[in-house]
Formats: sequence, structure tokens, C-alpha cells
Amino acid sequence: MTSDALELRSEHACFGGVQRFYRHASREIGLPMQFALYLPPQALAGAQVPALLYLAGLTCTEDTFATKAGAQRLAAALGLALIAPDTSPRGAGVAGEADAWDFGMGAGFYLDATQAPWATHWRMESYVLHELLPLLAATQPIDGDRLGIFGHSMGGHGALTLALRHPGRFQSLSAFAPIAAPSQCAWGRKAFSGYLGNDASAWQAHDASALMAAQAHVPYPGGILIDQGLSDNFLAQQQLQPEAFEAACAAIGQPLTLRRHAGYDHGYYFIQSFMADHLAYHAQQLGLARSAD
Amino acid sequence: MTSDALELRSEHACFGGVQRFYRHASREIGLPMQFALYLPPQALAGAQVPALLYLAGLTCTEDTFATKAGAQRLAAALGLALIAPDTSPRGAGVAGEADAWDFGMGAGFYLDATQAPWATHWRMESYVLHELLPLLAATQPIDGDRLGIFGHSMGGHGALTLALRHPGRFQSLSAFAPIAAPSQCAWGRKAFSGYLGNDASAWQAHDASALMAAQAHVPYPGGILIDQGLSDNFLAQQQLQPEAFEAACAAIGQPLTLRRHAGYDHGYYFIQSFMADHLAYHAQQLGLARSAD
Repeated sequence: MTSDALELRSEHACFGGVQRFYRHASREIGLPMQFALYLPPQALAGAQVPALLYLAGLTCTEDTFATKAGAQRLAAALGLALIAPDTSPRGAGVAGEADAWDFGMGAGFYLDATQAPWATHWRMESYVLHELLPLLAATQPIDGDRLGIFGHSMGGHGALTLALRHPGRFQSLSAFAPIAAPSQCAWGRKAFSGYLGNDASAWQAHDASALMAAQAHVPYPGGILIDQGLSDNFLAQQQLQPEAFEAACAAIGQPLTLRRHAGYDHGYYFIQSFMADHLAYHAQQLGLARSAD
Repeated sequence: MTSDALELRSEHACFGGVQRFYRHASREIGLPMQFALYLPPQALAGAQVPALLYLAGLTCTEDTFATKAGAQRLAAALGLALIAPDTSPRGAGVAGEADAWDFGMGAGFYLDATQAPWATHWRMESYVLHELLPLLAATQPIDGDRLGIFGHSMGGHGALTLALRHPGRFQSLSAFAPIAAPSQCAWGRKAFSGYLGNDASAWQAHDASALMAAQAHVPYPGGILIDQGLSDNFLAQQQLQPEAFEAACAAIGQPLTLRRHAGYDHGYYFIQSFMADHLAYHAQQLGLARSAD
């Protein structure tokens, strides 16, 4: 497999569009990577369509969003492509990479590691921003200048931080139950100390609440949308801390719609319940007519 | 666990209703059985709601439909409960039960086996009709007199045959890519010879096309809905044979809407693409106002 060659692993007609699963040799990761791509009917008919990048949570793969989130129906109605990468390198052979469900494989945290032995392959930020998105804009019927980003849990952290670290790259930003203040929670401290080292000052550049608090200007004047379930065990365990991100947005005047939903937990039954609102928000920010329900 | 005691394994808020997963000691199976139940918001608010029984295909479990089919959104809008049993006994310890993916575990074919060693536990027809549905009608906010049935592949076979073998039990009937003439295909011949014996005359009572051809009166005057993908490998392999069922319906005057969809395969990306039409059909037959899109 040469770099930039996309191997189509499978494809499935879905709501008039097509759900595809690809594999390619990643230059940034130094290993094969897999991702999912949904192309709506409009793209199959020849249009360049805007795209949403979805980042999944701990233990997930490129398959999770495509299988469980129920987004294709709305993406088809709106004319949006959906891009979902895997959550980490696989098969690197780093000692301990599979010892924990919240670090290493399935837990890339959407950053470039600086610490050995992770720094060689764990380069998810560069992979997504500098390889996957340009590759798809170059090879697929996707308008690379009209991109939104969203994600769940660790992927919500990824969406918030990549959107804040790369101003102008994404026109819209939302999240489901994001790890919103990773420097302040057990998951984040474990990941950041392992990938970035023990100097916590280096963590701030990958902490959504710290990044937001440091913004000189409102980065998303059209608003940010976050949904959080109130029966989410990880909320109670202080792993998510949406209130920290809410306070940071308030401090700089960033409009935020943070919805707290009684009874909902951390999983994809929660996510699918509010998916329509997220896609409608992104479509509106990306200048699409709202044609879905 | 005493008989009829339902153990709630997990529950998840979903579209204002709740997706539950239960386990119970089954009298008919003689082993613990698991099933999924979605209750729409109307049921949580105190209403007795009609229900759809969904039967899944080979290798699936009670989890498959709940995770992949995207039916809860519409069920919530329409006020329908969704019931999804497992596809066979588990843990019976019958020699060879896990040797094949198309026979034994995960492959109960929704009939009562008559042949040793399967006859003791492989009693999926009696389990579903005489135990699970009465149990749910007695313990859940479900109107046991307003039931529809549908399913996929082996579960499409199950839906068609149970609906024809138990007249009056279900008010509506649909299927996705059903095994429509099992006496005539490899899957069906293997299952029927193993569960029912080598006398093929006994198979006719569990073959949807044979059952339909033998009807004295039109069993579903409101019509039957079947969707079939034309890029379905199992259609090409003659495992499904919807044309046999179509001919049997035509011979007795049973209205049938059989839709053939170019490009769609056998999986849940196909199923979710047409789920809205199935739920709307069932809701209409069950006398519900159509309030979903």
C-alpha cells in the first residue's frame, strides 16, 4: 500500500448515499489507519459537499459512529458528508499499548505525543488535520473549505481542542458529553502525563477549557452546541466537567448552548437522541438549507 | 431467577423513551433468555401502547436491532413499543451447537425443533408466542391485542411464518430480505433437516411461500410489505427467493408490496434506510395516527 492510496474495505448503500470503510498507509502515524466516510446522495450525483468530522470516544473505532449514531439519514437529507477516523494507531507494538482501555490503543486523545515511546506513532492531531482531511478533500467529492467538527467524550475533547487550536479550519463545532477540562480529571491527567509528560503547563494547549479561556477573540461567533446527559456516570465522576468549559466561554463571551438532559447516560442511545439537533446546527453554520426534520 | 421474573440488565433513555435489556428464566426454552424492549414516551406517561415484534437474522442477538436499526426515533414519534428477542437458546451445551453460524446457536429459525438433541431447548416459536408476548402484555404497558411483526433474513422468515401460522395474533406483517422459501434454499434445508427431520413434508408448515399458497382466505387484507436489496449477496445465492413468496401471494390474492432496491445489500445500512416506511406501515395497520416523518 503506497501512501495516499485508499483501500476500500467495504461499502454499503444507505439512505440513497453510501457508507464506505477505508484503509490507507498513514504517513503521519507510520502505520495503516482506517476510517469511515459517508457520502450523501448529492455527492454521488456530482456535487462537492461540506463535511462533518466526527471524533469518537475511548475504546471506539472508525465503525462506532457509522453503526450506532444514526446520522446518515439526516446527512443524506442535508447533503453532508460524514468522516469518522479511528481513535488511535493500531498495531504499533509499543509495550503496554493495550494494557488499559483509557490509554494507548483506542485512546489517542487527538494530540501528537511528545513522550517516548508514544511520540513515534501517536500523532492523531497531525494525522487528522494534515493528512486525513487534505487527502479526502483531494480525492472525494468533499469541499475542504466547508468543514464542521464534533465528537463524543474523548472525541468531544478532540473536537473542542482541534477547533480551538486550528482557527478557521472548521466553521462549526459541537460535542456530546465531552471531556471538557482534561487537565482536571483522571482520564486527562493519565493521558496527558503519558503522552505529553509530567509538566502540566504543556497540557493547557490541549485542554478545551484552558484554550477557551485564553482566546483573545470569540472563536465561534455562531455558537457552540454541547449536549450532556445528567445520568452519565462519567459526569458524576468528574471526568467531563462541562461547567468548566461553560465558565470559560462565559468569560470571553463565546456563545454556548449547553443542554443538560435528565435521564440520559453516556452512550449512543443518548447520542442518537440528539443527533438531529447537531446536524441541523452544523448545516446552518455551513450555509446549507435545512431540509431535514 | 424464578419463572416470569424479569431481570433488568440495563436501560438507556432514548428519544424520550427507554431502551431496556432484560433477562429471564424461560419456561419454554428451559434456559435463561435475553430480549430488548423499547418503550416510547407515551408508554412511560401511562398509556398502553401497541408493539412491534422484531425477529433478527442469523448470528444476531437481542442487541442487534436496538443498536443498528435506527427504529427508536420513529417508534417514539408514533407511540410504538419495540420487542426484540434473541435468535436462539444460549448455553444449552448441546454438542455441535456452536459449530456453524447458520445452525444451532444464533440460528433458531423461530420454530419448535422436533428432532433430538435440539427439541429440548430449541423451541423459539413457543417461546415467542406463548411465553414472551404474554409475559410482556402482562407486565409492561403494552396492548397485547395490537401487535405487528417484522424481521430480517432468518427473522423475516420468522415473521412471515409466525404471522401465517397464528392467524389473528398479529395485525401487521413486514420483512427485510426474508428467507422466503426455506424449503428451497441451502440455509433452510440445513435448518429444517436438523430441527424437523429429513421428511420434507414437515417443512411446509414452516415455509412462508408454502404457507401462503395454502391459505384459504387472504390472511392480511391490509397488505404485506417486503423490502429487498438487489446487491444482496444472499439474494444472488438463492437463499432468499422473494419471487416464490410473491407468486404465492399472487396466487391467493394476498396484497403484497415487494420493493426491490438497486444497490442495497443485506445489512443494517439497508434496513435503516427503509425502517421509516415499515414503521409507518405498521402504525397505519395498527390504527395509530401517523405523526412521524
